Amino acid sequence: MTDFRQQALDYHEYPTPGKISVELTTPAETSKDLALAYSPGVAEPVREIAQDPDAAYRYTAKGNMVAVITNGTAILGLGNLGPLASKPVMEGKALLFKRFAGLDSIDIEVNHRTTQDFINTVANIADTFGGINLEDIKAPECFEIEQALIERCNVPVFHDDQHGTAIVTAAGMLNALEIQGKNLAESRIVCLGAGAAAIACMELLIKCGAQREHIYMLDSKGVIHTRRDDLNEYKQLFANNTDKRTLKDVIEGADIFVGVSGPNLLSAEELKLMAPNPVLFACSNPDPEIKPETAMAARDDLIMGTGRSDYPNQVNNVLCFPFMFRGALDVRATAINDEMKVAAVEAIRQLAKEPVPESVLKAAGVKELTFGRDYIIPKPIDPRLCPRVSRAVAEAAVKSGAAKIDLPKNYMQD
Amino acid sequence: MTDFRQQALDYHEYPTPGKISVELTTPAETSKDLALAYSPGVAEPVREIAQDPDAAYRYTAKGNMVAVITNGTAILGLGNLGPLASKPVMEGKALLFKRFAGLDSIDIEVNHRTTQDFINTVANIADTFGGINLEDIKAPECFEIEQALIERCNVPVFHDDQHGTAIVTAAGMLNALEIQGKNLAESRIVCLGAGAAAIACMELLIKCGAQREHIYMLDSKGVIHTRRDDLNEYKQLFANNTDKRTLKDVIEGADIFVGVSGPNLLSAEELKLMAPNPVLFACSNPDPEIKPETAMAARDDLIMGTGRSDYPNQVNNVLCFPFMFRGALDVRATAINDEMKVAAVEAIRQLAKEPVPESVLKAAGVKELTFGRDYIIPKPIDPRLCPRVSRAVAEAAVKSGAAKIDLPKNYMQD
Repeated sequence: MTDFRQQALDYHEYPTPGKISVELTTPAETSKDLALAYSPGVAEPVREIAQDPDAAYRYTAKGNMVAVITNGTAILGLGNLGPLASKPVMEGKALLFKRFAGLDSIDIEVNHRTTQDFINTVANIADTFGGINLEDIKAPECFEIEQALIERCNVPVFHDDQHGTAIVTAAGMLNALEIQGKNLAESRIVCLGAGAAAIACMELLIKCGAQREHIYMLDSKGVIHTRRDDLNEYKQLFANNTDKRTLKDVIEGADIFVGVSGPNLLSAEELKLMAPNPVLFACSNPDPEIKPETAMAARDDLIMGTGRSDYPNQVNNVLCFPFMFRGALDVRATAINDEMKVAAVEAIRQLAKEPVPESVLKAAGVKELTFGRDYIIPKPIDPRLCPRVSRAVAEAAVKSGAAKIDLPKNYMQD
Repeated sequence: MTDFRQQALDYHEYPTPGKISVELTTPAETSKDLALAYSPGVAEPVREIAQDPDAAYRYTAKGNMVAVITNGTAILGLGNLGPLASKPVMEGKALLFKRFAGLDSIDIEVNHRTTQDFINTVANIADTFGGINLEDIKAPECFEIEQALIERCNVPVFHDDQHGTAIVTAAGMLNALEIQGKNLAESRIVCLGAGAAAIACMELLIKCGAQREHIYMLDSKGVIHTRRDDLNEYKQLFANNTDKRTLKDVIEGADIFVGVSGPNLLSAEELKLMAPNPVLFACSNPDPEIKPETAMAARDDLIMGTGRSDYPNQVNNVLCFPFMFRGALDVRATAINDEMKVAAVEAIRQLAKEPVPESVLKAAGVKELTFGRDYIIPKPIDPRLCPRVSRAVAEAAVKSGAAKIDLPKNYMQD
């Protein structure tokens, strides 16, 4: 572990500090180049944009640029360490945007006093970018922040910790249920955790067919139920009219367990109480709610997913967020709406059912990946994700009226 | 002109819209790479920065990253066209930072209501960057904005339209006066224009030895004098206790004319009224206060500078701003103070007195450049500017206590 720690620090320190740089896409050597790039030539695109704001997509980097914005209040599993400490994570996110979707991405860390101050700051700079990816902002403030920014900004705003997690979870869950012979509408669901990801996951599962009254959500005080008086407005939406109070009470007979909480909070005994052929997503990272070895030993009718790359069925946001923005930006969507999210769920689901290219098998270090118990969602390294998910998102944006332009001809064929 | 217009638009549209992109400086291909770049490896630099904020300079791109920030209220000579329309200029500035000083630079355009709202927005995001270059913000708001941000930010804040212009003007002016056998303390100065650049130029000339009472500043209403009641607090500092009212009144016997106003505002007749061996900087761009041909025909004892690259003695901010930040960032200066500005003036002055390398002559398309009437400041393409000016600025930062670390060993030898 010490070795890995040092490797991680070295990776960030060399060859230059950090992971991203800004580079030039146009020639800038000669005086002629500079006369076009800056004064006097630059006045021409300025005049065009002054007359038509959409010309910014033609003459500036805006249309391919995503800002990754945080206040550092919920950094990975590390908690509230402040904006500056979150910078390596935000640069990492920028790296993933580039690596997986070819998007230019820059991190912005915001120091602020009130929630309104944060909202105002981000809204004021939003037009600089093609889209805003909110990141690692703690609940419940993240809900108010995202909603306010969606209303104030002309560009898509997407809180990945909520919706990225929800989209990939829903895709994997629907495939797992299909394999287990269950459907979402009839499934009883336990959600351990009541933060940003938990609430977004459950809301999206409801949009995909789950019944709200079949969901038992638990926070650190146990089951969220209608007689509790300590619930914020977001948890209240999941207050269940029930006498059940503990994880043990609710997991009995449950078809689905979604863990977005912390390590080792689910025991093998509790797992054994679930209905036959259950689906278990233990997404706490790096240590899941129950160890895969423990879970698989407890029962063999299980489909399990985790947040980890070293077990099957990794529930990883990177399957989704680069392509949400790729698709949204390519049709200049003004928002990322539910239709676009559901389209991403379907595209990710579908891809897992198709034969896997040799290159992916090789990179994953496995001989075979066939749709089934151990392969319910695509691998992050699958190069078909970008065209498939981006296209599905872009098409849904056009169909739902969120897009300002049509799909480019022959857009993203794979 | 139509051809140049189309060339400028094409330059901005192709090969991809805009002039900058974000690229990766670390490998991001394999699962191992990604485990170091993002979860779980990224937690290590996060912990380091949480314990020591300065570790951000070691593990993130902060220390080489300059934000170019505007509200678009004074775009080049085009005026107030709003933040989005200014984007090509800001990307152009980012391009110049990279081209001349190897700095990563990203533009941020701010939509805001009040001046305080702008200040607050920039202060809230400032820690993301190693330094803040304010750009194209109109006077007098720019003065309040810069002052407030200097007080609130931990990183250097520099309004280039003010201080970049002032530094290069002072360097050229001191050299021109030396050639003309004059000194600044005894020179009578006319400053046509009373905006951000004008006021900063005069303040810096005063720091270099000029006498405030020898300065006549003119705005659109004529000479700024003590009996005017329409002056903002910044112009008031230059209110001269005089009966003179017009340009013609004050230019008689003046040693120095600095024009930062508009095209063709100075006539040959007025020029002829100046003292013997005058210095004339006509910096309005692209059309100077008086055409160089007209000026040189009017008198032959003149040293003239303009903002244009197609005449001798181009007064160009790019001689300065990339290296102000290069030097400041390399010693983690918390501000760009007067000592650093004066050091830059001296370094730029000195370089003009040295033999010019063949490569510069070639790029400039001339046979000879020797310190004198037609060569008082270096050419922007001179590769010695970066090491010389950056080193002078960094050394002054260390000496004046603005630096958080010492100069790296063998820093920027040329």
